[in-house]
Amino acid sequence: MQKDISLIGIGQTKFGEWWSKSLPALIEEATDAAIASAPCSALDIDFIVVANMLGEAMSGQAHLGAIASSLLPHRPPAVRVEAACASGSIAMHTACALLESGRAETVLVVGAEKMTDSSSDEIASALMGAADSEKDAPSGLTFPGIFGLIAKRYMYDFNLTRERLNLVSARHHANAVNNPFAQFRQQMTPQQIGASTIVADPLRLLDCSPVSDGAAACLLSTKHRSDIRIAGSQTSTDTVSITDRPIITSFGATKDATQRALDEANISTSDIAHLELHDCFSIAALIALEDLGFAEPGEGIQWYEQEQSMTVNQSGGLKACGHPVAATGIKQIIDVSKQLQASGRRYGLAHNFGGAGATCCVHILHHSPEHATT
Amino acid sequence: MQKDISLIGIGQTKFGEWWSKSLPALIEEATDAAIASAPCSALDIDFIVVANMLGEAMSGQAHLGAIASSLLPHRPPAVRVEAACASGSIAMHTACALLESGRAETVLVVGAEKMTDSSSDEIASALMGAADSEKDAPSGLTFPGIFGLIAKRYMYDFNLTRERLNLVSARHHANAVNNPFAQFRQQMTPQQIGASTIVADPLRLLDCSPVSDGAAACLLSTKHRSDIRIAGSQTSTDTVSITDRPIITSFGATKDATQRALDEANISTSDIAHLELHDCFSIAALIALEDLGFAEPGEGIQWYEQEQSMTVNQSGGLKACGHPVAATGIKQIIDVSKQLQASGRRYGLAHNFGGAGATCCVHILHHSPEHATT
Repeated sequence: MQKDISLIGIGQTKFGEWWSKSLPALIEEATDAAIASAPCSALDIDFIVVANMLGEAMSGQAHLGAIASSLLPHRPPAVRVEAACASGSIAMHTACALLESGRAETVLVVGAEKMTDSSSDEIASALMGAADSEKDAPSGLTFPGIFGLIAKRYMYDFNLTRERLNLVSARHHANAVNNPFAQFRQQMTPQQIGASTIVADPLRLLDCSPVSDGAAACLLSTKHRSDIRIAGSQTSTDTVSITDRPIITSFGATKDATQRALDEANISTSDIAHLELHDCFSIAALIALEDLGFAEPGEGIQWYEQEQSMTVNQSGGLKACGHPVAATGIKQIIDVSKQLQASGRRYGLAHNFGGAGATCCVHILHHSPEHATT
Repeated sequence: MQKDISLIGIGQTKFGEWWSKSLPALIEEATDAAIASAPCSALDIDFIVVANMLGEAMSGQAHLGAIASSLLPHRPPAVRVEAACASGSIAMHTACALLESGRAETVLVVGAEKMTDSSSDEIASALMGAADSEKDAPSGLTFPGIFGLIAKRYMYDFNLTRERLNLVSARHHANAVNNPFAQFRQQMTPQQIGASTIVADPLRLLDCSPVSDGAAACLLSTKHRSDIRIAGSQTSTDTVSITDRPIITSFGATKDATQRALDEANISTSDIAHLELHDCFSIAALIALEDLGFAEPGEGIQWYEQEQSMTVNQSGGLKACGHPVAATGIKQIIDVSKQLQASGRRYGLAHNFGGAGATCCVHILHHSPEHATT
């Protein structure tokens, strides 16, 4: 990092179905919470980066940078960014660049999505905007379908059984019991996961993250300090269409972004105490563990077969927290920061991708209580 | 500017109706042209900023950062940004921050829009996403309607006659005759402007920029040099809803962004030789001239009553070039750079806004032949 960037404020709405709250209302709720938690006032915010994917299609509202700015008394400059389900974390990356450039000293990063007012068909269709509309969509694929294909190939290549795959969502649901912001705080047994309705064979309903409303906000600052700093912020890109990939059971963008983020933070995977990874589907969690460097290909499931020193999706992940697309990447940063403060450990990593790994962002947080006052 | 940023490549498609070209095809055409004009190869591009507003609603394609990245051999990291009709120039601003931060040395900025495949109603509805969907849209307003209200008030406040207003679009059309990339290269007499169909009283068809397809691309670099550098890049925000404004005949965000850009470039308005301003509607051009500091309130029309030393929309502006939303802000930078190189003069300014001036970006270009080799 070119500058010392602190995470000085965090806030989020509960993720869920918020039929009575508009997209701006969700943005405002998360923003207010982030400001309330920060050692500065709203007036310190000198730039806003809003992450959103579906505002135009689902709420008839583009231009969400200016909408978010209008919610603050001094209307700071603002931009909306989008990279499908990686919109939240690419917003964090954009904010880091704005801070490092000196164009801002304190940036509000807020991601929000309003999904549950629309029909399942409308949502599925809009989400396919994250895939290649010329190569993938005309085949009738949906995102569960794309990850169904990936899961099928992975299970074939690595002899992963349905029984072992059940452990992924079961663990994430068990973790969410302790998270008051999670959409689903219910325990789910591996048997319940494996018996749930098939969505896109071999993926079942409880392999899939849900459709959700929600918002999450962070304040990043080079002016004010906290015990959490951004140690690495990197993004990488792969082909959008899965038909252009040499293999579909590993995501190159995750590998690339992770290596560059670790280099930027000057640490290795063994330093990571808490990991929030992008489990839009259960199979994606296993692939992420492997691409992030925590397991050999085909062995990611071992992280779910026993407790480990490093926590994985202690928040509940996308599966149990919900996945309001552009809020997710920011929520992950919030969760990692809370985990580090609770455990007293040093490094955590947030892994967020868009499409089938076409855009991947990796952020590394460094927790250092002495940093807050030095 | 924190770093010395050169404009090293420019490219665009002709703006118009491109029913046989997809959004990615337009992006590719402009990108290829920009790379072909640059003193480096595609492989030098280490970040892409894509500007787009309507891809999801009109083409079913979000995630355009990754789509653009897939068109290059090495798939650099990428982000899409959006600020309604200011999307192109906010992408330039984002690219400046990435370059100043050191996160990139050569950035491709490409803006594209595909609008003419959709019905007029669909386009009008999607464009209202630039306004406030809770405050403005439920009144049945469209963008011509919003600017119709603004024009009516302006004509009342300043006794602007229809005959004088006709001069604006007539001049822009006359200028476009020399621009091979313009959608409409026809001369239009003031009488033709004033006799065209009423769209939203008092605005007539020839007061309004058209619906267009097109793309424009710039390469910005801190590594390679050219005779054009970015001397100022600023963005400001106003309320999105016009109902929240004290007056509607002046746009505060233009005033603020202009002052900050002039300060950043360390020049005054009298240094500007070429101006490309955002004439989405003829009335917007007059308001821009006043808010930019080139005329007193109500006197902007004087720039159209006689030739001046500073050129205004020598390209033809949005009216005659066409207005493929997110391409416009980038096309303006391209036009100003060409004008400076042709005239040998030093400074040019591009003014681009989104919504009814809710987001405004002002860029100042500095032309200095010796800069290319120093």
